[in-house]
Amino acid sequence: MEIAEELARKQRSISVAEFFEKNKHLLGFDSPTRGIITTVKEAVDNALDACEEAGVLPDIFVQVRKISDDVFRIGVEDNGPGIVPEQIPPVFGKLLYGSRFHQIKQSRGQQGIGISAAILYAQLTTGMPAVIISRTDARKKAHRFELMIKTEANEPDVRSRQQVDWDRPHGTRVEIEFKSTLAAKKRLLEYLRYTSVVNPHARITADIDGEISTFERVSAEAIPCPKAIQPHPHGIELGTLKRMLSAQESMTLEVFLVENFSRVGKQVAREICEKARLSGEQKISMLQPADQKRLLSAMQSVQIPAPPASVCLSPIGEDLIRRSMDKEFSLDFVAARTRPSSVYSGHPFVVEAAIGYGGKLNADDKALILRFANRVPLLYQPGACAITNTIAGVNWKLYNISQQTLPAGPIIILVHVASTNVPFTSESKDAIASIPEIEREIGLGLKDLGRELKLFLSRRDKKRVADDRARAICAVIPEIAIKVGEIVEKPAPDTQAIEGKIMRKVIAKRRTVNGTVQIEVNNYTSQPLSLKIYDFSPDAATDALPKPAFSEKSGDEYTRVWNCELAAGGTWTARYGGRGPGHLDLQGIEEKQKVVMDLDV
Amino acid sequence: MEIAEELARKQRSISVAEFFEKNKHLLGFDSPTRGIITTVKEAVDNALDACEEAGVLPDIFVQVRKISDDVFRIGVEDNGPGIVPEQIPPVFGKLLYGSRFHQIKQSRGQQGIGISAAILYAQLTTGMPAVIISRTDARKKAHRFELMIKTEANEPDVRSRQQVDWDRPHGTRVEIEFKSTLAAKKRLLEYLRYTSVVNPHARITADIDGEISTFERVSAEAIPCPKAIQPHPHGIELGTLKRMLSAQESMTLEVFLVENFSRVGKQVAREICEKARLSGEQKISMLQPADQKRLLSAMQSVQIPAPPASVCLSPIGEDLIRRSMDKEFSLDFVAARTRPSSVYSGHPFVVEAAIGYGGKLNADDKALILRFANRVPLLYQPGACAITNTIAGVNWKLYNISQQTLPAGPIIILVHVASTNVPFTSESKDAIASIPEIEREIGLGLKDLGRELKLFLSRRDKKRVADDRARAICAVIPEIAIKVGEIVEKPAPDTQAIEGKIMRKVIAKRRTVNGTVQIEVNNYTSQPLSLKIYDFSPDAATDALPKPAFSEKSGDEYTRVWNCELAAGGTWTARYGGRGPGHLDLQGIEEKQKVVMDLDV
Repeated sequence: MEIAEELARKQRSISVAEFFEKNKHLLGFDSPTRGIITTVKEAVDNALDACEEAGVLPDIFVQVRKISDDVFRIGVEDNGPGIVPEQIPPVFGKLLYGSRFHQIKQSRGQQGIGISAAILYAQLTTGMPAVIISRTDARKKAHRFELMIKTEANEPDVRSRQQVDWDRPHGTRVEIEFKSTLAAKKRLLEYLRYTSVVNPHARITADIDGEISTFERVSAEAIPCPKAIQPHPHGIELGTLKRMLSAQESMTLEVFLVENFSRVGKQVAREICEKARLSGEQKISMLQPADQKRLLSAMQSVQIPAPPASVCLSPIGEDLIRRSMDKEFSLDFVAARTRPSSVYSGHPFVVEAAIGYGGKLNADDKALILRFANRVPLLYQPGACAITNTIAGVNWKLYNISQQTLPAGPIIILVHVASTNVPFTSESKDAIASIPEIEREIGLGLKDLGRELKLFLSRRDKKRVADDRARAICAVIPEIAIKVGEIVEKPAPDTQAIEGKIMRKVIAKRRTVNGTVQIEVNNYTSQPLSLKIYDFSPDAATDALPKPAFSEKSGDEYTRVWNCELAAGGTWTARYGGRGPGHLDLQGIEEKQKVVMDLDV
Repeated sequence: MEIAEELARKQRSISVAEFFEKNKHLLGFDSPTRGIITTVKEAVDNALDACEEAGVLPDIFVQVRKISDDVFRIGVEDNGPGIVPEQIPPVFGKLLYGSRFHQIKQSRGQQGIGISAAILYAQLTTGMPAVIISRTDARKKAHRFELMIKTEANEPDVRSRQQVDWDRPHGTRVEIEFKSTLAAKKRLLEYLRYTSVVNPHARITADIDGEISTFERVSAEAIPCPKAIQPHPHGIELGTLKRMLSAQESMTLEVFLVENFSRVGKQVAREICEKARLSGEQKISMLQPADQKRLLSAMQSVQIPAPPASVCLSPIGEDLIRRSMDKEFSLDFVAARTRPSSVYSGHPFVVEAAIGYGGKLNADDKALILRFANRVPLLYQPGACAITNTIAGVNWKLYNISQQTLPAGPIIILVHVASTNVPFTSESKDAIASIPEIEREIGLGLKDLGRELKLFLSRRDKKRVADDRARAICAVIPEIAIKVGEIVEKPAPDTQAIEGKIMRKVIAKRRTVNGTVQIEVNNYTSQPLSLKIYDFSPDAATDALPKPAFSEKSGDEYTRVWNCELAAGGTWTARYGGRGPGHLDLQGIEEKQKVVMDLDV
């Protein structure tokens, strides 16, 4: 059929830049609104990674300026090690170019796509080249590039290059200008806030169209940079093994195993060779395909410890998570877990989870879910994310949390997945793919925390029941009092004090007994209180004991103020010569919790 | 900082094959279970596309054979136009190589990634080359290739090539062998079934490890192959425009516009030039950047019709959708909508939606949701899909459908999005990205159908209420009868007939009145019935009127059978000379709906 020839003529190869230009939504450029966030995210990721590798405390400046109605200029600047001039064009002007793709360690960026994609998006929407300034050493000048991307070739297109002065001794600045809107400003700040939450060593300053926000670092020590490890024998696949073998044909098998795999020493190497019925002494160039397959299955069946996660991963840590969550939401309850490290198809990973309850959270809302991967907040596609799905999969009713699909109520759930290879569902890195091993770890962490939360809630509820009971009793006491009064033909006794005791309030009494004014304050609450006690009366009360903090006359009435620290259950008294009448007031306690009784009036 | 040099040494470019090998989950190879489905899907997509382009009725053979415990060999064969030998290596051995990427028309495959990725996965897990056999013409021999992929280079690696005999006059067969499991067999068949549902012109035969299933074509005419159109002025971006301009520098602006854009004739072209304050006569090589920007905004602001969707898209059609849904689930209610075509950022698309209710669907389940894009079923990541999210966004309670997040009950919802550029959330094409224009169209379709469904349900519920009332009444009638009987000192009258009327049953009475047997059948149901009426008695009844369909003697009893068509509310009678006793029976109606009364006995 000559249709075949016709079709053949249409066949051609597609550059990865063309591919991502057409599928820009895969990279998070599906809407102009989102473009800004994605760009800032990619640039900040790179900045944080670079600073980590250089061991400097990140000091990042993010700038978004409105150029015209629908054009914005995004600038991100860091104090990282900088990029040598020769590398700037490919790093920024070529998709799939980077330093972290082949390294087995936790890092924010990996593919070498992100920032180049932003530049691609810029030239697509405004045709403007990106500006990159970078300086690697205070003794050298900074280099300034204007560059674009040759889409069909996926190659950098340098428009200008010059040496310039720059105030930073070292670091990198990138400026990109594209069509966008600031509709997602709130979300952008959210992203920066959460980023600083999980990167406590970083200072991030943002100038969003003139409005400055600073996220100050809370820890002054750079987080240790994860170190690259070698592949783990259990995680390797035949194709990869073949490539590794053909790369070092002259080696002996034993040396090859020892030098190229983590957790493989001479001992383990010999064990593998035995299992594979191969000699450790033979050159690997001699291995036949059948040998290679036996070798692989031997490698995968041999007993060895998991990869050294502590080296290549950097979890946030329970304490920091707890503190930062509490800082944000001043919670009634917060607990965090850093799970032991685990492995999925050879990639080590650590799951961290935390649950907060109450505080500033809104009781009517769905749970607030914060997702993080390798210290980067995930803002989009919650529905596609293993984190969300695992949360939905937990039976929260077991922990007295109401649940539709997701848990609801004044509850916040944080999950952080750190791995040498986070399995994102797309290049935009919005969501984590559903990997059983990872979901299992998340689930275990959450259930563990759920049990703690349940304990807290039941304790709290017990207290609540007690309070209700108390309220019920107090409701009847006055009637009883009245009845009793009628029977004994006396005015009904004042019952507020009793109520106070039962209701855990603060009772302040003021009475005058033959020429002496007595003030008594009882703290029936369960917390210590520091109160200001005001006494208003015509008496000068120069003999007042204890002495008031101050006393002043206005008109023909005196105002006296005592400061008193009153322990839970404690009593405070003051007295002075006087005729009364007068009245009291308390500050430093809620209205509904205080009972003031001026018994002379 | 010499750290910069150190980092520079680690920089390198990553081939797209390396990228997807590491991120194979992006292509749907995240689990061995899924690998088979993904591979079959990619191969079948290609087969259907090729057949469509060649205008042949697809006859596709899918084969999955177990080679060892964890290794399967997947073969997919079609009767398409075949592929010319020179093109086979790049088409199968190079990612991002294909014929449809740059064409603006609906097609299943687009990126030129899918099948190559499967081959990549094979060499990664089993190290086996893929086998491709293709023949373009009955007069030529078939060509057989064994090939792999050079991952670092993303180039084909041809292991063997020969001419062979093949029974197909034209077509292509691909065989790939990788580590997998058949755990998802059910899902695989589901995929094939739904594929045939939306490709009624295709015959698909599957041999899944020895078990044969055939999905026969229900329509004998090839569906018209969508034709490629030119880009629409409203959908173009500056970068793309610049590229197009630089490709044809010698043209005049007017000619350029007319020849390169859909919906642009001389008239529109002039209008655009005017708006842009440019002369249509000038060579486009003369355009300055500022001119280009003005040109673009002029193109986007000029009033022109949407792209010719009818040419480049091929929706399934309401009738076919209704029929195939009913075929699958024999529904009580089914309605379908093909929305008018619409556009998102220049890409034409059509949304089709359908709702089915009742039938074989399970009342306790969540709604069954079938998602399709360009006639391909979407099986994974429902949570990430604009279709699911839009369904969840509709307030189904308005249509008397219970709803948690998604609607629940015996309901099935089908949505098909056809577009020249379906915005998938990842290369695995599992889910459609949330594009407002698309979600809007889906929503409109569903609400429209929801209203219809509501009508159906309220009608049905009215009937149900009536029935309940009737049942209540019937419950008391017998007691009333008995009481009445006692009062008038007679045996209680038989009330079944009354109940029958109220309950809409079929009442058959048989009584003998002085030597004449009378049979009377009343159809109190709301449907016409065709009944077989059996009469058993010792009477020969040769004078029976109407004449029975047949009459026979067994032992000393006669069996007579009448066939009668009985309209709703209709009555049928028969009589013959006889002494009785005897009895009746009815066939052609449910037991619970018939009341047979032999009044002589």
